Amino acid sequence: MTGIDLNSDMGESFGRWSLGDDDAMLDIVTSANIACGFHAGDPIGLVRTVQAAAERGVVVGAHPAYRDLSGFGRRAMDVASPELTADVLYQISALDGIARSAGTHMRYVKPHGALYNRIAVDPIQAAAVVEAIQEFDGDIAVMALAGSVFAQVARDAGLRVIAEAFADRGYRPDATLVSRREPGAVLNDADAVGERIVRLAEEGTLIAVDGTVLHLDADSVCVHSDSPGALAMARSVRDRLQAADIPVRSPLDVAPAAEARA
Amino acid sequence: MTGIDLNSDMGESFGRWSLGDDDAMLDIVTSANIACGFHAGDPIGLVRTVQAAAERGVVVGAHPAYRDLSGFGRRAMDVASPELTADVLYQISALDGIARSAGTHMRYVKPHGALYNRIAVDPIQAAAVVEAIQEFDGDIAVMALAGSVFAQVARDAGLRVIAEAFADRGYRPDATLVSRREPGAVLNDADAVGERIVRLAEEGTLIAVDGTVLHLDADSVCVHSDSPGALAMARSVRDRLQAADIPVRSPLDVAPAAEARA
Amino acid sequence: MTGIDLNSDMGESFGRWSLGDDDAMLDIVTSANIACGFHAGDPIGLVRTVQAAAERGVVVGAHPAYRDLSGFGRRAMDVASPELTADVLYQISALDGIARSAGTHMRYVKPHGALYNRIAVDPIQAAAVVEAIQEFDGDIAVMALAGSVFAQVARDAGLRVIAEAFADRGYRPDATLVSRREPGAVLNDADAVGERIVRLAEEGTLIAVDGTVLHLDADSVCVHSDSPGALAMARSVRDRLQAADIPVRSPLDVAPAAEARA
Amino acid sequence: MTGIDLNSDMGESFGRWSLGDDDAMLDIVTSANIACGFHAGDPIGLVRTVQAAAERGVVVGAHPAYRDLSGFGRRAMDVASPELTADVLYQISALDGIARSAGTHMRYVKPHGALYNRIAVDPIQAAAVVEAIQEFDGDIAVMALAGSVFAQVARDAGLRVIAEAFADRGYRPDATLVSRREPGAVLNDADAVGERIVRLAEEGTLIAVDGTVLHLDADSVCVHSDSPGALAMARSVRDRLQAADIPVRSPLDVAPAAEARA
Repeated sequence: MTGIDLNSDMGESFGRWSLGDDDAMLDIVTSANIACGFHAGDPIGLVRTVQAAAERGVVVGAHPAYRDLSGFGRRAMDVASPELTADVLYQISALDGIARSAGTHMRYVKPHGALYNRIAVDPIQAAAVVEAIQEFDGDIAVMALAGSVFAQVARDAGLRVIAEAFADRGYRPDATLVSRREPGAVLNDADAVGERIVRLAEEGTLIAVDGTVLHLDADSVCVHSDSPGALAMARSVRDRLQAADIPVRSPLDVAPAAEARA
Repeated sequence: MTGIDLNSDMGESFGRWSLGDDDAMLDIVTSANIACGFHAGDPIGLVRTVQAAAERGVVVGAHPAYRDLSGFGRRAMDVASPELTADVLYQISALDGIARSAGTHMRYVKPHGALYNRIAVDPIQAAAVVEAIQEFDGDIAVMALAGSVFAQVARDAGLRVIAEAFADRGYRPDATLVSRREPGAVLNDADAVGERIVRLAEEGTLIAVDGTVLHLDADSVCVHSDSPGALAMARSVRDRLQAADIPVRSPLDVAPAAEARA
Repeated sequence: MTGIDLNSDMGESFGRWSLGDDDAMLDIVTSANIACGFHAGDPIGLVRTVQAAAERGVVVGAHPAYRDLSGFGRRAMDVASPELTADVLYQISALDGIARSAGTHMRYVKPHGALYNRIAVDPIQAAAVVEAIQEFDGDIAVMALAGSVFAQVARDAGLRVIAEAFADRGYRPDATLVSRREPGAVLNDADAVGERIVRLAEEGTLIAVDGTVLHLDADSVCVHSDSPGALAMARSVRDRLQAADIPVRSPLDVAPAAEARA
Repeated sequence: MTGIDLNSDMGESFGRWSLGDDDAMLDIVTSANIACGFHAGDPIGLVRTVQAAAERGVVVGAHPAYRDLSGFGRRAMDVASPELTADVLYQISALDGIARSAGTHMRYVKPHGALYNRIAVDPIQAAAVVEAIQEFDGDIAVMALAGSVFAQVARDAGLRVIAEAFADRGYRPDATLVSRREPGAVLNDADAVGERIVRLAEEGTLIAVDGTVLHLDADSVCVHSDSPGALAMARSVRDRLQAADIPVRSPLDVAPAAEARA
């Protein structure tokens, strides 16, 4: 059994404004998606979050976004490919330098918010993001929605892909997420969510809203960090996995080749 | 004779707004101080300027600044040391990643505008900038006003210092620059400026506004890029140096140890 | 004959970056679409442009945009209606206060760039913009693409509409603009453009790319301000109109009811 | 007895980031200093806070700041006077338009953070702020630190001044505030703070850290909104004033002349 990775968004404070409890969440997750300044994250916040992740041995990933501070990177934007490639390159470069200064490395890239959603279906923007990562360092992995266009484009380009599932989100029978505007989009019951992750880790399946059994090859599960109750939910999920003897770890932790570049 | 370095500020366009003629200036200078996004420079502009510098073998430096886009980094700001260190680390990390993606390296850091002026005299902010560079990579040089507090703090910390002089600026007898609000602050005569640089390279001296002969150990001379006539001035200076058989080159070009890290 | 209005985008400099020659253009046009800070325009630039317009008796309009400085407001963004309404309200409020401080008034609102294009076809975002204007002051006019959804939504809401045509753009037989990615999108010949405007003012017709005669009820024609040759084109158009004895004036100049609110 | 005004900073959320509990605080204070977007406050947040203030009859003031989102306007900046005047004019114009759209008016201007501190002692920047207010509307009041340079410059220019004291801050014998870096800077005991305000309202005196009795002509007392316990402190202060039969109200509420302009 290879276990499962728990990832969470971090470093999303900005200046006077705090968001999430990164320190507490870093005691739970095994991968930290750290903001890069375009949707959230001022430099001193990034430095502190990266250092806190490094101290706990949590794998550091970059969480680049559209340049949209007032919209928190959650608004779809038509960004031309050369601009998008450069925007992602800038952000992951900044985070990688901060990580190296803290004695660790940025190991993967997980795009944020509206960019994540867009490249799940749009091969053009997906390719622009992949190009940025390849130009920067072809040994960096991507974290991508399991079954998405982005996952496929990254794999085709030779990048390592960490496939991600959302245990607290409802799935449609076609393995896409139920829209937040529809009922069943978000699961708030920690037991049910924990149950889903155990099943995902053990059997590779997830039950869609209509009862369909989906086969999902997921390496990592996202635990949300910025809602009330997020921390309790994350702890409950982690406890549930441990009770089931499912190792909680990043797939990058058992990758000697990836380690060698460090 | 070791020659003299010519450096210029670059990459200072932003989105729809163009500033300077980087391509033309890169044919003249030997070191490019490239904006990092806080006072100017959007990612795609940085990528293009870094690539153009790499193609011509011009040495790439980072030009970090206070976070002040509307003020172009020219307004003094009281930034606390931990924030300033993180802000500089973020900016030089971003530029270094872009440089490596273009097959080159960021070799030095020259702070911009109000930050440059502040650390010339303020040991607290100077130390905060030096700390960022050391945390990032102690082999990176700094470009600092010859005789400034920043130059001294960097040297004391073990960083290599490229001492800079301003051939088109008037100097006071104490080797500080004449304020732009006073007469004699800026020299617009290309012949006179070229003459000053030749003398600086050959004899290590510069004539102050009152006739005093200043002894200045300068490795690099800044040629301004963003005023009308900047390009003509820069070309004239370069021609004058070549006519005098003074090599125009970066001190980093002849540093095998620094090269070794590449 | 009521004549025709010439409008142009203005105030689009920002901090260190200049764009366009507002003073020269203000001698030509009769309506100034002045940036409001979200895609371009810092406060001091807006103040100066508004003052220059007021001195020349040019009608002042607001040119609000998506909040996208690095993209110059030219990238489509999915902004929810309440946010969009508030964003537009903030921008037009700022410009109106600056206008009143300069002894004039903001008389109309012309959305910019990607927002202009979006509301030409999207009734949701069009309604959000209209709501902002109504909340602010129902006597403010809108400048909208002739025949667009925005023009219709504004009219239905009781707002006065200044219908706009683009004399230097190719039209399809259905009265929409030829995409900039297709041939015939932009006309660069000043004579031909002047000819089109005269015909538009005299007969209310415009020839589409396939020769179709379009009937277009246009009150205002946009002359572009930020391309090389923009000024020469604008002057040529103005001269051509005067030669044809067509009055060049804003429809708001002959609106006593609108004046009364001043 | 004229009573005393309680004012608090509001509207300081931004996009995804919340700060303070404006609704609760608006049930306590009589004047709301509302952010204008430069240090905090996105348009939709400003709209909501202004509407909430209008519903409760709380007097609306503008809280303009240096353009420094990442530093929350708390970092001193050397902004030239024409820029500062335009920056303040832009911000108060935006807030006034939002206020009028909500059926109320902006009645006063209280500068924020580092700008507030700077103009308390710097006549140049104080004059630049005063100029913006005069250009906008000479009937707008300013809220200024009692005894400050800003209060004097505003009064000299004919503006109405609301003199402000800080009941939860220690005062030096010369009526300046004890620096936050020194002991006794901030009082956290609600009873003691309430006591000080009652004394201030009844006798016009405040006890300095060394026991000196200061005579302070204060119209308004600032209750902080963004610290833990801020709300409890504010409620306690209000209760204490009511127990002492001291009317809590804005001096602008009893100003018919000012009302007449609405």
